Amino acid sequence: MPATDAEPAADVLDALVAALPGRVFTDEESLERCRRDRSGHVADGTPLAEVRARSVADVQAACRIASASGTPLITRGAGTGLACGGLAGSGAIVLSTMEMDAVLEVSAANQTAVVEPGILNGDLNRILTGYGLWWAPDPASKDISTVGGNIATNAGGLLCAKYGVTREAVLALKVVLADGRLLSVGHRSVKGVTGYDLCALMVGSEGTLGVIVECTLRLRPLPASPVATIGAFFPSVDVAAAAASRVTASGVQPAVMELMDRATLECVSRHTGVDLVSKGNSYLLIQCDGAAALTEAEALLAVVGATATAAELTTDPEESERLLAVRRQAFPSLEPLGTILVEDIAVPRDQLAAAFGKIGELEQRYGMLIPTVCHAGDGNLHPNFVFQGDTVPEVIWEAAGELFSFAISVGGTLSGEHGIGVLKQRWLAEELGDLQWGLQRQIKALFDPAGILNPGTMFDR
Amino acid sequence: MPATDAEPAADVLDALVAALPGRVFTDEESLERCRRDRSGHVADGTPLAEVRARSVADVQAACRIASASGTPLITRGAGTGLACGGLAGSGAIVLSTMEMDAVLEVSAANQTAVVEPGILNGDLNRILTGYGLWWAPDPASKDISTVGGNIATNAGGLLCAKYGVTREAVLALKVVLADGRLLSVGHRSVKGVTGYDLCALMVGSEGTLGVIVECTLRLRPLPASPVATIGAFFPSVDVAAAAASRVTASGVQPAVMELMDRATLECVSRHTGVDLVSKGNSYLLIQCDGAAALTEAEALLAVVGATATAAELTTDPEESERLLAVRRQAFPSLEPLGTILVEDIAVPRDQLAAAFGKIGELEQRYGMLIPTVCHAGDGNLHPNFVFQGDTVPEVIWEAAGELFSFAISVGGTLSGEHGIGVLKQRWLAEELGDLQWGLQRQIKALFDPAGILNPGTMFDR
Repeated sequence: MPATDAEPAADVLDALVAALPGRVFTDEESLERCRRDRSGHVADGTPLAEVRARSVADVQAACRIASASGTPLITRGAGTGLACGGLAGSGAIVLSTMEMDAVLEVSAANQTAVVEPGILNGDLNRILTGYGLWWAPDPASKDISTVGGNIATNAGGLLCAKYGVTREAVLALKVVLADGRLLSVGHRSVKGVTGYDLCALMVGSEGTLGVIVECTLRLRPLPASPVATIGAFFPSVDVAAAAASRVTASGVQPAVMELMDRATLECVSRHTGVDLVSKGNSYLLIQCDGAAALTEAEALLAVVGATATAAELTTDPEESERLLAVRRQAFPSLEPLGTILVEDIAVPRDQLAAAFGKIGELEQRYGMLIPTVCHAGDGNLHPNFVFQGDTVPEVIWEAAGELFSFAISVGGTLSGEHGIGVLKQRWLAEELGDLQWGLQRQIKALFDPAGILNPGTMFDR
Repeated sequence: MPATDAEPAADVLDALVAALPGRVFTDEESLERCRRDRSGHVADGTPLAEVRARSVADVQAACRIASASGTPLITRGAGTGLACGGLAGSGAIVLSTMEMDAVLEVSAANQTAVVEPGILNGDLNRILTGYGLWWAPDPASKDISTVGGNIATNAGGLLCAKYGVTREAVLALKVVLADGRLLSVGHRSVKGVTGYDLCALMVGSEGTLGVIVECTLRLRPLPASPVATIGAFFPSVDVAAAAASRVTASGVQPAVMELMDRATLECVSRHTGVDLVSKGNSYLLIQCDGAAALTEAEALLAVVGATATAAELTTDPEESERLLAVRRQAFPSLEPLGTILVEDIAVPRDQLAAAFGKIGELEQRYGMLIPTVCHAGDGNLHPNFVFQGDTVPEVIWEAAGELFSFAISVGGTLSGEHGIGVLKQRWLAEELGDLQWGLQRQIKALFDPAGILNPGTMFDR
């Protein structure tokens, strides 16, 4: 979307350069980078400029200029999104918060940290280790994704079933609104029920309501004991899913419970040269942590061992790492196949086997392979659709759309942790229903009346 | 607020009786009950009628009539609120959801339950015990308060530091809007990031955005082992608060950590006839649960024992109950003193001792006793202001107001778990700031344009 006729793009650029000297970049490399994320997609057209903010005042200045000129403003962190929520196209101002990466405060007594949005999740957690503390959100991208981006997407990860999603780990936010005003929501206290929970509303809002500029995070003490890890193979994904259900039903809450199907195991075997498929057709990885880690893992080994073709339990860090690596290698091992559309449905946990059944049915009917990994502890599946090039073929959207409808029909969702972005915007109303979709758009309009913040993300323009 | 001139109250009553035969009550006892909650306050004037809804359709009918006639509609559960959020005054329609108390579904495989809003928290949990499951929100009122009310106020309790507040235990809601339309928000899956988190927005909205008619709850497995309980006395509340801080810093997360001051201990001693004050001037109650309960409690006994005048640890259920009873008796033992304004500030955990210091200073300066109990695990203090009669004297509001300002100044809040209701409405803007307060009012207007839902609660009319 180009700048409005009222204010030519050149004037907007001049205004940015004047207000933000040394912070505005228009070189091809910068602009090209801002057209992409980790989804493999590329935005149409080229953005006007990238503003690399270093302060709240920088963000406010950029928002005021965008607002005054009606120019779309796309907030970007590290660009690791999978739903095109941070892709900047023709004429847009890119607002990068990557250089706002300071840790402003760590309080061991409060188990809180105050950070700028651009710090990488992994970098923050390396710093927190020195305090015996930890920020629990753990998206797979944690070493390359920012805290601000994690919050903007309410990022998930492997540990959510035990430790909750990002929303539970955010106490307060400072947010610059579209018109440049600075809004503070939430508290530094663990509890607080004054008025509506706008902090929770901001978490997962994908940059459409404001620009997150300061984050007060709820930390946890680092689990003290070594983790206990189970790696188990099963004759089929159904049997593995049933074992995962028995784990949930056992009342023992593992920190991690990941499930992989045959197609993914084949890819990992090929990629790593380690023969996994001879051990079984599906893999279940379980980790327990905390003071009772080993006791809990022993109980769970008995639970899953009954139907496994092979199962082992270890507390040795290197052995644990080897069992975990099977799962870690899943995405890298898919890459040689082509471009991957990583889908992200979540279903109630008793629908896990049904979801795998639906995926199998789609594979058959559409004649495509859909290697799938799954956060089995919380029913969040990542079916991976493989294609060539940088645009998802319509037939894949057709198959994915059927899967979304299935997830919604069983009370689940078309996105467990990646968000709507641009890629899934067309299915949003199907999940929300017209009434809620309308209310959500009105909330968007309330925070951003001119519709300049991430237009096209979540809702159509 | 009477019905508008456009539609006399008699016509509104006729419309209710016609639409909801057998569900509309205007007897004095019913209407008197609806003028009160557990705060000791009584609403001005008498409501028009109490509608006892038995179905979603009943709620929709009442909302449509209220909307069409511009009549205030006050949703009530069990009336156990402490902030007058459910008090119905002159001319209002009371919408009771107490008779919508069915458990619609319990899924052990999903660890979810679907319930109507009127079921008591305690009744639900008694049913869930049979499934080895548990809904974690545990306000002190749990045996007499409804799940719908717990959700409407984002209720807290003793277990929040470990198990989270009510928001974390709600997956989805059905809500009737002011105009009678039925809105569904959230998912049955544990995760879901499609659009804005309107489920979290509804939790804690105190009946001002809609009427909760169905609740999909996230359950937890019942902790298997017996709890381990520590009761410890300290020479002063400062020393006890410091011990609580050391517990937090130790990295061991107790399920319960409650602190009581000298004044409260004196009341409990008087009330129960058990001499507590000879053991110390402040009491810290700690409970650990789960597989490592005893190991954790032993570690914490060492942490707090160093500065305690007396400390004991037990896993015996009866002994545990005796140690817990000291805390349980706190509120009943205050009742003989007069009417109690139970205040509810929360502060960052490193400000606990400072908060007690502030309370001591107010006691001195205002010449009043403010017995205080505290959820020390999450920094939520209940200073109890004692007065005679059923209206809080202005001098008490003055002292309480100073305490609110203190809590806000250290990054805390004027309500950790009770909510704003009518009683604290005048301080809300001080905490939220004008910008956020304005946005919150606009959100209210978006859901309830005519302002008929709980007018005067949270915001002034």
